[in-house]
Amino acid sequence: MNPKMIDKVRDKNPLVHHLINYVVMNFVANGVISFGGSPVMAMEEKEAQDIAKSADAVLLNVGTLSHENISSMIIAGQTANKLDNPVVLDPVGVAATSYRSQVIKHMLKKIRPTVIKGNAGEIAHLVDIPWKVKGVDSVGEGNIEEVAVKAAQKYNTNIVITGETDIICTGKKIIQNTTGHPYLAKITGGGCLLGSIIACCLTTDDHIEDQLISAVTFYGLAAEYAASQNAVTGPGTFKAHFIDALSFPIQKLKG
Amino acid sequence: MNPKMIDKVRDKNPLVHHLINYVVMNFVANGVISFGGSPVMAMEEKEAQDIAKSADAVLLNVGTLSHENISSMIIAGQTANKLDNPVVLDPVGVAATSYRSQVIKHMLKKIRPTVIKGNAGEIAHLVDIPWKVKGVDSVGEGNIEEVAVKAAQKYNTNIVITGETDIICTGKKIIQNTTGHPYLAKITGGGCLLGSIIACCLTTDDHIEDQLISAVTFYGLAAEYAASQNAVTGPGTFKAHFIDALSFPIQKLKG
Amino acid sequence: MNPKMIDKVRDKNPLVHHLINYVVMNFVANGVISFGGSPVMAMEEKEAQDIAKSADAVLLNVGTLSHENISSMIIAGQTANKLDNPVVLDPVGVAATSYRSQVIKHMLKKIRPTVIKGNAGEIAHLVDIPWKVKGVDSVGEGNIEEVAVKAAQKYNTNIVITGETDIICTGKKIIQNTTGHPYLAKITGGGCLLGSIIACCLTTDDHIEDQLISAVTFYGLAAEYAASQNAVTGPGTFKAHFIDALSFPIQKLKG
Repeated sequence: MNPKMIDKVRDKNPLVHHLINYVVMNFVANGVISFGGSPVMAMEEKEAQDIAKSADAVLLNVGTLSHENISSMIIAGQTANKLDNPVVLDPVGVAATSYRSQVIKHMLKKIRPTVIKGNAGEIAHLVDIPWKVKGVDSVGEGNIEEVAVKAAQKYNTNIVITGETDIICTGKKIIQNTTGHPYLAKITGGGCLLGSIIACCLTTDDHIEDQLISAVTFYGLAAEYAASQNAVTGPGTFKAHFIDALSFPIQKLKG
Repeated sequence: MNPKMIDKVRDKNPLVHHLINYVVMNFVANGVISFGGSPVMAMEEKEAQDIAKSADAVLLNVGTLSHENISSMIIAGQTANKLDNPVVLDPVGVAATSYRSQVIKHMLKKIRPTVIKGNAGEIAHLVDIPWKVKGVDSVGEGNIEEVAVKAAQKYNTNIVITGETDIICTGKKIIQNTTGHPYLAKITGGGCLLGSIIACCLTTDDHIEDQLISAVTFYGLAAEYAASQNAVTGPGTFKAHFIDALSFPIQKLKG
Repeated sequence: MNPKMIDKVRDKNPLVHHLINYVVMNFVANGVISFGGSPVMAMEEKEAQDIAKSADAVLLNVGTLSHENISSMIIAGQTANKLDNPVVLDPVGVAATSYRSQVIKHMLKKIRPTVIKGNAGEIAHLVDIPWKVKGVDSVGEGNIEEVAVKAAQKYNTNIVITGETDIICTGKKIIQNTTGHPYLAKITGGGCLLGSIIACCLTTDDHIEDQLISAVTFYGLAAEYAASQNAVTGPGTFKAHFIDALSFPIQKLKG
């Protein structure tokens, strides 16, 4: 990864327009601020275009999908597309219900995401590969790299699949990341916030490969650092220390 | 209480469909994950049936009641009823406004909850016993056991009334629980999360009495344990340590 | 400031009806409870009047403005106005979009707020003074006192402008406050929660000047105290300790 990239993001303090689920809004806003970004969370259709225009990137997360927010998401995504600004799509729970599946597939016809980030079950669903899911969690097993390549090709985009080993797929190239900690799966929003960190990193002038590796590696290192603190005795204290760690220089996280 | 029951819940990792207020969503999701359950928080009417069908239990909490969410709640509750899955109803603030009272009484005609959990003021309101409330809090005094028995009979269900002493009423039998800590009343969602922990516990094959006693006792012990930690200096640090404690074996909580 | 005023608020435990953005709901509710108030968070139009009637104060915060919530806000504000109860308006991001600007200016024709609290960019926008903003943050520089006086005059109300130095304007009088800590800008809701603490303090029988100075000074002292704790290593741990500090006697915060 490229440590200077993280510094560049922090110098820029990118404004990221979030259309994101209600469960993790507070956690994600705090994580983005701590990391060095500037989050705006706004769902109202009547201001979606204005806010997306003023932002450096758009993050679409359908964790608590509501029919009232779909058009706001499409407007924000299309506005970013027109401006050539990055768009990150997090298709939370796309395999959980047929409604969610239809809506997200519809959105993918209207918007060109720069990155689709999800767990294996979510990305597999987008390319019709059977995968076991439980609610919004992926519990199946299979060829994750195949899933990533297929999705990158089908949607002509970059893919990040989170898991014990994260998979980054930029076109046909596959990169693995093994930083991270099981605590990330023990708090709600552990995956959602990574989407926002990626959106922040996409706003520099670096190559997409550098951006994605840096975002995912840094995020995992922050989790490892937090989990190693003596004050952390479970997911509640981990969460607070993880937010702290997102503000640290990467040198500190590497120990 | 039955310590093995808590282990059984954790082995099962039950999926609980939450239709719950926006204030506590994040806290409750984190608490349920830490405890060993799997929360899905989804309010959209168009996927309410699908999600409720895939879940092991349904939790209905009207803390930020909105007319748009009532039908979703009824669909989810009825779906669980048809599948004989547990339904927990938390009538937050039912006595606060006539609108809320009407809506919840309407819901109780459409849904058969397995458990109604609330504070004394909320449950008293459901059986027309006068009780002093302040916003969504119960501040009155009276015969709480009478309230519990009347509500259990009127709605043909099980009742949990939270307070300094918790009251569990299964049919005509009354059980008291004194585990707990005043800090639970100093954070928002201290009562709401108990509803979710109960929903998790209702998914085992144990007797309802065992399930309710175990859930309520464990929850109070986790609060006591957290409050006793040196690092806890007020409700903010308590909250993080309480989430931690919910993940611990019951032996650890008992010291 | 008047330390006894804080004690009076805690003795009263004022009920504050919050119509507030989804991002900070949980944080603000926890902060208000810890401080000694009693928050009710309810957005539904059909119960807005009932809840506002039962409350000691109303807090209107448009951070995640939605067209569905505007009438609820106006009803709650007007109800408090009729009862001569305090109303605090937090025009979050009013300069961010023309939609938000229109809505808030419309609200200001329908409601008489006791206090408008915002950052410099927000208050400057309300009096048509150009000011640089970034999303919902104020990043410009200029004559803040002029902004405060103009806004107090134009809207015939009291103004609190938050920043490195906070400005309180009661009519023509200007008071500065320098308590506080940069961490408050590193968490989401650092400004929003102050609005609620002000609302709590406005419910005593003291003079508005005393109320505003006490609220703003106390809030800043709590932030300083929290930031000075050894356990605080970043914005995540700060947040928990700040909530703790809001419950402390002012003597403890002053060291």
